[in-house]
Order: sequence, then C-alpha cells, then structure tokens
Amino acid sequence: MTDNQKTDKATSAPHGSMQPEDTPALRKLYADFQKHHLNPLWTQTANLMPPHPKPEAVTHIWDWSTLYALAAQSGELVPVGRGGERRAIGLANPGLGGRAYISPTLWAAVQYLGPQENAPEHRHAQNAFRFVIEGEGVWTVVDGDPVRMSRGDLLLTPGWKFHGHQNIATEPMVWLDGLDIPFGQQMDVGFFEFGPDVVSDLSTPDLSRAERLWGHPGIRPLSALDEQMNSPLPAYRWVHTDAALRQQLALEAEGHNVTQSPGHAAIRFVNPTNGGDVLPTIRCQFHRLRQGATSQSRREVGSSVFQVFQGTGSVKLAGKRYTLRKGDIFVVPSWIEWSLEAISEFDLFHFSDAPIMEKLNFARHEITTKT
Amino acid sequence: MTDNQKTDKATSAPHGSMQPEDTPALRKLYADFQKHHLNPLWTQTANLMPPHPKPEAVTHIWDWSTLYALAAQSGELVPVGRGGERRAIGLANPGLGGRAYISPTLWAAVQYLGPQENAPEHRHAQNAFRFVIEGEGVWTVVDGDPVRMSRGDLLLTPGWKFHGHQNIATEPMVWLDGLDIPFGQQMDVGFFEFGPDVVSDLSTPDLSRAERLWGHPGIRPLSALDEQMNSPLPAYRWVHTDAALRQQLALEAEGHNVTQSPGHAAIRFVNPTNGGDVLPTIRCQFHRLRQGATSQSRREVGSSVFQVFQGTGSVKLAGKRYTLRKGDIFVVPSWIEWSLEAISEFDLFHFSDAPIMEKLNFARHEITTKT
Amino acid sequence: MTDNQKTDKATSAPHGSMQPEDTPALRKLYADFQKHHLNPLWTQTANLMPPHPKPEAVTHIWDWSTLYALAAQSGELVPVGRGGERRAIGLANPGLGGRAYISPTLWAAVQYLGPQENAPEHRHAQNAFRFVIEGEGVWTVVDGDPVRMSRGDLLLTPGWKFHGHQNIATEPMVWLDGLDIPFGQQMDVGFFEFGPDVVSDLSTPDLSRAERLWGHPGIRPLSALDEQMNSPLPAYRWVHTDAALRQQLALEAEGHNVTQSPGHAAIRFVNPTNGGDVLPTIRCQFHRLRQGATSQSRREVGSSVFQVFQGTGSVKLAGKRYTLRKGDIFVVPSWIEWSLEAISEFDLFHFSDAPIMEKLNFARHEITTKT
Amino acid sequence: MTDNQKTDKATSAPHGSMQPEDTPALRKLYADFQKHHLNPLWTQTANLMPPHPKPEAVTHIWDWSTLYALAAQSGELVPVGRGGERRAIGLANPGLGGRAYISPTLWAAVQYLGPQENAPEHRHAQNAFRFVIEGEGVWTVVDGDPVRMSRGDLLLTPGWKFHGHQNIATEPMVWLDGLDIPFGQQMDVGFFEFGPDVVSDLSTPDLSRAERLWGHPGIRPLSALDEQMNSPLPAYRWVHTDAALRQQLALEAEGHNVTQSPGHAAIRFVNPTNGGDVLPTIRCQFHRLRQGATSQSRREVGSSVFQVFQGTGSVKLAGKRYTLRKGDIFVVPSWIEWSLEAISEFDLFHFSDAPIMEKLNFARHEITTKT
Repeated sequence: MTDNQKTDKATSAPHGSMQPEDTPALRKLYADFQKHHLNPLWTQTANLMPPHPKPEAVTHIWDWSTLYALAAQSGELVPVGRGGERRAIGLANPGLGGRAYISPTLWAAVQYLGPQENAPEHRHAQNAFRFVIEGEGVWTVVDGDPVRMSRGDLLLTPGWKFHGHQNIATEPMVWLDGLDIPFGQQMDVGFFEFGPDVVSDLSTPDLSRAERLWGHPGIRPLSALDEQMNSPLPAYRWVHTDAALRQQLALEAEGHNVTQSPGHAAIRFVNPTNGGDVLPTIRCQFHRLRQGATSQSRREVGSSVFQVFQGTGSVKLAGKRYTLRKGDIFVVPSWIEWSLEAISEFDLFHFSDAPIMEKLNFARHEITTKT
Repeated sequence: MTDNQKTDKATSAPHGSMQPEDTPALRKLYADFQKHHLNPLWTQTANLMPPHPKPEAVTHIWDWSTLYALAAQSGELVPVGRGGERRAIGLANPGLGGRAYISPTLWAAVQYLGPQENAPEHRHAQNAFRFVIEGEGVWTVVDGDPVRMSRGDLLLTPGWKFHGHQNIATEPMVWLDGLDIPFGQQMDVGFFEFGPDVVSDLSTPDLSRAERLWGHPGIRPLSALDEQMNSPLPAYRWVHTDAALRQQLALEAEGHNVTQSPGHAAIRFVNPTNGGDVLPTIRCQFHRLRQGATSQSRREVGSSVFQVFQGTGSVKLAGKRYTLRKGDIFVVPSWIEWSLEAISEFDLFHFSDAPIMEKLNFARHEITTKT
Repeated sequence: MTDNQKTDKATSAPHGSMQPEDTPALRKLYADFQKHHLNPLWTQTANLMPPHPKPEAVTHIWDWSTLYALAAQSGELVPVGRGGERRAIGLANPGLGGRAYISPTLWAAVQYLGPQENAPEHRHAQNAFRFVIEGEGVWTVVDGDPVRMSRGDLLLTPGWKFHGHQNIATEPMVWLDGLDIPFGQQMDVGFFEFGPDVVSDLSTPDLSRAERLWGHPGIRPLSALDEQMNSPLPAYRWVHTDAALRQQLALEAEGHNVTQSPGHAAIRFVNPTNGGDVLPTIRCQFHRLRQGATSQSRREVGSSVFQVFQGTGSVKLAGKRYTLRKGDIFVVPSWIEWSLEAISEFDLFHFSDAPIMEKLNFARHEITTKT
Repeated sequence: MTDNQKTDKATSAPHGSMQPEDTPALRKLYADFQKHHLNPLWTQTANLMPPHPKPEAVTHIWDWSTLYALAAQSGELVPVGRGGERRAIGLANPGLGGRAYISPTLWAAVQYLGPQENAPEHRHAQNAFRFVIEGEGVWTVVDGDPVRMSRGDLLLTPGWKFHGHQNIATEPMVWLDGLDIPFGQQMDVGFFEFGPDVVSDLSTPDLSRAERLWGHPGIRPLSALDEQMNSPLPAYRWVHTDAALRQQLALEAEGHNVTQSPGHAAIRFVNPTNGGDVLPTIRCQFHRLRQGATSQSRREVGSSVFQVFQGTGSVKLAGKRYTLRKGDIFVVPSWIEWSLEAISEFDLFHFSDAPIMEKLNFARHEITTKT
C-alpha cells in the first residue's frame, strides 16, 4: 500500500548561460569557495528554486491493522517511562530519509498505553494533539487538569504545557499523536522539561475544568478575556463533531449551500478566543462524505495528514487511487493533488501545517476538479 | 423607585482669567459670533470638558409588574403592523428629555406580541437583540431563518438583516429588546427598509439553520471561514448560559479562581468567528451571584442596562441601594458606581455599549470596592 | 454663503396599521407611559429609523476672512488663560441648535494666540489636532515635548496627553482646531485635568523629540515596538504632504493609476505603528486637485470638515455649488453628496469621523458621479 | 576566523526506563518498524526534544576582503545570465552540511554585477532583500519599477514579484542578498517563474515610483488603503537610516530613554501599511553603537545575520570574542548568546527570521548581560 511518486528535482532544472568554461582558474575558485564556506547559486538554482513545490516527502498510506499490531507488540516488549517518555511509534515518510517525520513540518505517531500504565509528565515548546480512534480509559493531565480521552475526541496539549497520561482501564488504549516536531527540530525552536513521574492529578472526571469553563458555544468567562495563542479548550468531543457534520449534511439536503461541495461536510476545530486555529502551527479539521460522494480535487502548499475514523472509501493522490478502511493514515505532501471518495458514509480526521503557510504568506491552493 | 442624582455640571466649572470685561465691543463681538454661527470655547469649557463623565442620563429602575401590565394593555389597545412596526415600549431615561433613550447610546424596550400576531419584516442599520425573560411560542425570522425564542435565550438581529416575528401560541409573549438606536440617531448612521408584511418563513423549527451550523463549541464550518463583524450565531440558549454560570460557581467551590469575585460568576456572549462581542456596538453578558454574595463595586465609561432574570437581590447605584425582583430593569449611566448583592441566588442579564468605548479608546474603569 | 437644506424627517415617516383608535383607555395608557418613563415605538418610528441618514446638521460654509477678523477682535478683547483655557471660536452647525458642534461628532474651531501669549496646559480624554493654514512662531507642548507649528502642518494632541501652546513671535497666529468634543459630550466619555499655567518646556526646537524618533519613513525605534492607539508622530509636516501630493499627480501624468480619480491626488495621515488613522476617532486627509479637475461625487455615512489650504475652486454639496477661497471651511453632514472642482490647483485639508463609522460597522459610501 | 562550538546533542539525552531488553522479539519488532516506515520515539527523544535549541548551525564569521576578492574573481570567470540567474555566492553555514544555508531559515549571499551587466528577470515565492555595503550604478527592477541601489540602502523584493538587475556604471557592484530560501526549500513552499531576459524597464530614476508614492513619513495614498503582507516601500534609504540612528543617540545624550541600552541605538525597518516587519518571514534592523559602547548580551529563538556597515568593533558569540571590520558578516544560530562592542562608532545591518518565530508562537529571548 506504499507509493513513491518522488518527483525528480533535476529534470526541471533550467539550464542557461551561466555555465563557465572549466578552467584551472575556475577550479581554483570553486575550491576557494569550499574552503571559505561559500556555495555559488548558479550551480544549484533548480534545486533551491523549483517551479513549484517538489517535496522530498512522498505520499504514503499506513495500514491500521499493521500499526495496531505493532503498537500492541511494543506494549508487550517496551516499558513506558522516563527518558523515552512515551510509547509512541512515529510514522516516517519514506521520502525523508528514515527520520520520524511524516512531512517536513509534522509528526504523527501511534501511541499505546497499557492498562494501569502511566506516561510521565513533561512539557515542550512543540505543540501537540491527540485524536482517539477508539477506546476509553485514559486521562491526559494538561497543566494539572485531567482530560478524559474517548473515542472520536480531539485533545490539545499546546506548547509548554505540562502533560502526562494515565490508563485506569483494564484494556490498553491506542491513539494518534500529532505534533510539529519536524518543524521544531529543523528550525531550532525546541525547549523541553521533565515534570513529575506520575501524573499530577489522578482524578478521572468526566469533564476537565477547562471544558467546564470554556465548553459552552458562544460563551466565554469574564475572568479570561484576553486572546490566547492556543485554544483554552482542551477537548473537542465527538458528540459535537458528529452533530456539526450531521447538521451540515442535513442542511444541504434541505437545500442550503453549507457544505464544501455536494455531499462533503467539513468542519474546523477552532480557538474560542479568536476563532482561529487550535494551535499556532497545526490546523485540525474533520470531513464527512455522504455515501457515494466525492470531494473536490485540490492541491495546497503545505502538508496534510488524514486518518479514517469510520466508513470506507478511497483517496486519490497524484492521480492514483488507494482504498481506505478505519484507522488508515495517509500523508499528502505539499502541492500534491488529493481527493476523497466515499463508499459508505466516510469520516476522516485531518490535520495540517496550514497555519504556518498562511501566517507566513506562503499559502496557495488550486481546485483541480475536472468538470 | 426612581432616582435623580443628576450631577450639576455647572458647579465644577473652572473659572479663570478669560472673563473679558463686558463692553459694547465685546457685545458686538458676541453678536457677530452668533450671526456667523460661531460659539466661543471660553464661555462653555466646563460643560464641554467635564473633569469626569457627568451624564445627563440618570440611574433609574423600571418595575417589571408595571411594565408587564402596560405592555398587556397595549396588546389590547394597539394593533401591531406595518408603519409602527413593533409593539415595543421604549424605556425613556428621565434625564434625557423624554426621548426613548435609556442612555445616550442604548435603546431598551419591552415588546409584546399577542397570540397569533405577526410583526412584519424590516431591516435597519441599527443592531438589535432580544432577551426573553419568560414565555414561549414566538419565532423571530432573521434573514429568512426562523429562530425560536424561549425563556432565558438571547437572540441577535445584527444590523441590516431582515427580521420579523410571529407568535404561534395561544398566549402573548413579552421580551426585552436592546438596540443602539440612540447612538444611531444622534450620529446619523441609520438606514431602514421594509420587508414582507408576513414573516418570510412560517416554519417553527426547534433550532434555526444558523444554530445548526454554528452552535457547536469550538467548531466552525469550512464553508464560512471569514471573520464576521456580527456573530453568525443567532441564539444563545439558556441551557448553555445556565451551565456556564453553574460550572463557574462549582469550580470556585472546588478552589479555582475562575469567577469575577467570590460568589460572582459572569460570562460574555461572543462571536464565534473572532471571540469578540456579539454585535459591533453592544456587549451582552450574564451574571449570577451566589446567595448572599456581593459583586465588586465598579464604575465604567459607557452605559449599562441590567434585567433581573431570576432570584432577588439589590443594586447599589451611586451609593443608594434598590431592591430588585424578577424582570426589573435598571440603567447605569457612564461613570456611575454600581454593585450587586444577592439575597437568593441572583441572575441578571446585562448589556452595554462597551464595544463603542473600547474600539474608540475611551474605555476606563475603576474598581471602587471598599476593603 | 450659508445653506439650509435641512431634511424634513417627518415627510418620510411610514404610516401604517398601528394607529389605534383614540379612546379614553388609550389616553390613559399613554399617560401611564409618560408617568413611568416609557415611550412607545409606534408613535415615533420614522424619526428613530429613517430610510437613510437624515442629519439635523446642515451643510454650511464659513468664510475665512470673517473668521479671521473675528478671531483677531477676540485677540484684542479676550485674554487667554486658565478657566476658559483657549481663545478658540467653535464653528456651530446651524442645524444643531446653537451648540458649538460642527457635526454630531466633530468640533472645529479657529484658535488665535497673540504674540508672546501662552495657553495653559491641560489634558482631556477628547482627541485633538491642529492644522495650520498660515503663520509661524507657536510651539505646542505635548506631554512635555515642544512641537513647532508652521504653515501646512498637521499637529496631534491625542486624548489624555497634556498640552499647552506658546507664541514666541511678534505676530499673532491663527489655526484650525479639530476635536471629537461633540461625540464625547453626548456619549459621556470626557475626563479633564489642569496642568501647569505655563507650558512645561519653553524651548523652541525645530523638531520635537517624537519627530526625531518617529519621523523617518518606514523606520521605527526598537525601544518602542508596541502598537499604539494614537500616532506617536506629533507633526505631519507640509514639506512631506506637499511632496506626496505632487508625486501622485506626477505619477498620474506618467501614466500610472495612483490617484483617487483623474487629477485628484489624495493622502491619508497615518499612525506609523499600525498604518491606521492618526487618532482613534478622527481621520485626517489632504486633497489636491489639478487645475480644472473635478473629484468624484460621493456620499458617506459620517461627517466631514474641509478647509481650503490654497488655490481656488468650488464644492458641490447636495447639488448646490459654492465657490471657495483660501481658509474657507465647510462641513458635509452624513450621507450628503459632495464633490470638488478646481479652478486653479486646489489644496484642501479634510478631517472626518470615519474611524468611528468603520470600527462600529456603520460605514457605507456611494460614488454618485454621473457618467 | 571560523568557530565550531557545535553542541553535542547526544550528551544531553535523558536516559530512562524505556530501554527494553534486547531480545529476538524486540529485534523483530524494530525490523518490522523499519519495514513499515515507522520509527519509535523512545530511541530518539533527546534529539527530537532537546532541553533548549541545539542548532546544527554554528556561529561563523565571513571576512569581507575574502568575500569581495572571490566575488570579483567570479565576475571574471562566470558569465551572468538565464539559468543560473544570478552571480550570487551563498554563505554556507559550516554546521549545515555544505548547503548554502547560513541558518536553517535564511540564505545570505554576496552578489556581484559587473559594469553593463544585466541579471535577467524572474520571480519566486521566496522573499528577498538586498543590502548595499558600497557602490553605485545598479538598478533593481521590481514588478517593472526601477529601484536605484546605493550605499547603505535596503531594497526589498517580496515574494512573487518579478525582479532583475542592471548595472549602468563602469564599475562592478557588490551587495548582500538575504532570502528565506532554506525555509522555503525545507518546508516545500517554492514557486518560480522566468521573466524577460533583460530588465523590463531600463530607465534609471533617482526614486522608484513606489518610493514616490509611499516614501513620505506617516502618509499613505488613498488609492492603496488595504493592508499589505509585504511592505510596498521598495527602498529604505541610508539618509533616513542614518538620521534615525543619529537622532536616537542625540536624544539619549539629552537625557531621554530611547535607545536599546546606553550607547546602543537600534531601528527596525517596517511595512508602512501595518507597522510590522518588511517581509512575512524576515526582519531587517540596523544597529549603531557609540564609540566604546557595549550592547546587552542576549539570546533568542531563531537565527540572525549581521553585516558590519562601517566602523570597527567586535562581537562576542557564545562567550568568544571576534574582531570585526567593514563588510564582515556573521551568523548567530538559535539560542546562542551574542553581544556587540564598539571600538569606533560601529554600524551593523541585521536580519533575522524573528517574524517566523513570533507568528508561530516560538519566540523567546533572554537578556543575559552580567551586571
């Protein structure tokens, strides 16, 4: 289920008049460049300046049954604890040289926590979220506030907030972690600190304190009126996501133009203090396609990761179609065309680095649907 | 139950060196000023430039039983329809010369709609909301979208959206209307257009289309990503308001610092596209005081109007205390000190012109609680 | 040179079905309304809710030679000093009942300061600027920073900054003062404090300290990076205004589309910390029409005041044309159509309340030029 | 003059409880990970999540006399033209594996254009500027608008604007190019298009059209009121930079607190439409230290590049001091401590990726000056 349409950067290299004659003087010049830590533009323009984004990252689909089985084996063989910190298995884009980067900006991992296990607290500048494809019984404690993790929920742990996890159930639990680790590592922005070895609050309330304060539509507390760079709402519950998607399709059926395209409902999770993205670097969205529906075909600057939540369907990536089942994860590198097609009603969680692209003025997109 | 602490602007007038000798030449000059539509500053400085806001508007409490009784009589005597448009009885601040201004910026009215009556559609640049103190059975149709009006709900009709009302019940219904009519009339911003004589959609759904699209906490549709100056959410339902207030007091009881002051929960209704006020000129908030609690004593630039929703308590205005019961409405003009005290658990709806003051950089406040 | 196209609000009142039969019961109801400080909407809709802005303010032109002569007489008859504070003669819109309001939001005055006179320091919440039509020799001291006032300059004294003036010359000086006093007085936002009787810094530098820090195009000091609600630049010098206008017309002559309309150059004075208006409530602009050019014909929500700086031309207001000469001042109330026509090259300073209208979402305009 | 305090990421790796026993089952698991493009977090935490930024990039100083000599040799040996596009020699950070990245985000190059040479037009998503350390005679044509390049000037070519250069002089010219190529290449945001082979406007005006329109302090044209993501001002002239720095030091000498620290004047080049950075990804600043003065010692998230414009002094980088002369260029990687010291009056141009760090919420800094 792998793909490798790795674009050849060289083939599009423009060749021009700047190829000097190969002389001893030129060789001496190039040697001097190297000696003095210099590198001429004219020998590398095409690589540095492609006509459009030509990512090293490739499209790839990870099969959920494989991921789940390997995560379960890790649960048996690898203890969770201080140092390694998390039993998280990173998805490594085949085009990115073996590093656990699913794209140049994003990290995606499957995290596994066995019954009664505890992942110690730490904090880091990198922003994180969890998306729960199935299971119950884990609480993630974010700055001392225990947040229940249940099926279909999106949970946030924004940069520099302490967080740890505990599983109080008799079953293991597995979920998707998303972070901006690759961006942070390449751009040198990371800070990290250890917290307590055991989560700082062992209680397991149905709703976190922050949800009780912030989880009411169109309402904010007078005690917290400043805009916040990260969403103060730590959990986006499935019951609301599902209702929002269901209503979009119902409104469409009643004749209103509220979907992305016919049969394709889509929502964005947002920060209630400003209506913007939940994290400074990561956009989180959810898609539902009505049975038989097809999304627009699009390509965007920046990379996206999808996980099938329920239903069956397929994705077409750069012209090639892949069948998808529950739990499957795929990555869409920058400027690669994608479209979804639903066999049954088809639900997908989606995250991307779009906030980076938009804030830095690099965002572009094309709708390439043939009509 | 009226008050009249009308501040004397004259007494604080500074007197200085600019009182010229009264001569024929001076009289001639002053006559020429008048003839040429001129007016010297030096004869009027204190009025134009008071040491602090000295509103013409006064504090006043309107008794709900009186308001309700007069509204009901209007229901018998005055038909509702095109021209007058609404059976709305404006609260006229005693300091403002008989105009239906509750403050220099705000309009507040009690609107009464009898069983099976219909208020015709129109639209205007002025922004409006309704707050429902009791009753059921009316739908307000906002740009073609019928919005149920029920007890405790806040409903928005932002500027230039068509709106009309219909009562499908066998009982009359009464509610509070809030608008920025005085601001609009004095500042010459008003536009007005008639719509259909009967509301454009006679259906009576439990939830409006806009609520179905926007009423999910932390979620917005991908089909409407632009920031909007007015909240796209037309109804803020009592179930959410009540829950938000209850949770604040519960969190406080658990030891968390989330209330305005001990025993005083407070929320702001906000625009989900930006986290800001629901309307460009009007702030809407809700207060709940635990039995026996007292709010801070404050004064602010700008005017506020409160209506008691449930419970009993009192307000202290400029040092004088007034007992309040369900439905009572009072106004706090600019820079007048106010504080609330709860006898039973005490709920108040609150609206103000704070967005005007903040956006134009005139906002100031003082917390004057003695300790 | 006066005009009075005062619109009759009554004639456009819609009359409808809400005229109840005149009965004793109705009379009793209306009496009860009055007794309880209530005022029904249905008797006053048309006034409160006009189809478009119908200002009480009227268009009016003040003749500069008259203004100047009366200012000079004031200089002889009225001492300047504490209490009256300023020898400023307010322009009173004939439609606004004799108050020194040139419009519902704006104050405009001619201020006269004799040789060696001093206007004492004070500060107020209201925002102010000065525009200098001619003369030299006065320094305005803003928060302790002496700012030279010279021909063609725009000088700012934003809200709550201490300011006073001194004339060191042997000639009197006259200038235009603009403030948001009417807005402040009606909306109850005013604060006022006296400062020293003599300006706090008697030095007379060519450039103020703030200009030395902020007066470089596209450059800001690292010691002041926060956005400021008021422009930190206290003076917008004629040399720059003139150059900006001249270049627009030159670029237009070279074939570039950079003017407002053919032959009509226009610039806005802005806050270098955010590119927005210089004051939170007042917009300041400058127009230059090439000899023989005509501006677009427009109308806008909100009011504008213009002063001719040099050249001759005319303004058409609500269809009626008025000839203008240097120093003449005219007011355009809300939604009144205006256009300019140049006889010679024609320069006009222009201020308005547009920031109020834009921030509060009431801004609208129409370009009504016939083609 | 090179340095290599390359931090050893491995030494700070926390070691904890997650080291499973090495068994055949574990080896099978790790092999399966590799096979399925997975990579466990627990074997790589320290690298991915350092306690603070530990850049691969190192500090380095490039000597101007060497750079200039090699640029001149390139001028003799390498023709400029289509394909290679520019005779630009990139400064390659010794820690970044030979790529022409001066830091993970920034590109810096010395560009050389001989007499009568022409660099063809192209455009790219990447943002660029030029800083001119010396010389005259080149015009850069930005979207058809010829912009003179002179000593001390900063010139902008924001993303996706066509640009080319021509040298009309009899002398070659050399300048510093700064871009966000490394960010763009790693994050896959690049687009590129060729324009005409010869610059589209051969005229050589003293001021570009955009400067004539935008280069007036505190003034903007009414024909361009929208906020722009890139500064519309294409040139920041030395005369203004010098005056702004001189005035800061003069004001400091008069007793005002307007400098960064005693004797250290600093300015930021800004976008006049919003007061923010000139380019979405790159901050440009200028420093002047009075003879004998020392700057604060600081470290920041994100990388900076400096070029000495005039004077002599030194920089201390991570505790090691380097003497600097005119033209020398040095790089400060993320979280490396730096401070400047002036021998004579000391002027430095400075650019950084701070806008990226601030917009994405990763900015942090520490002032580490010992007192």
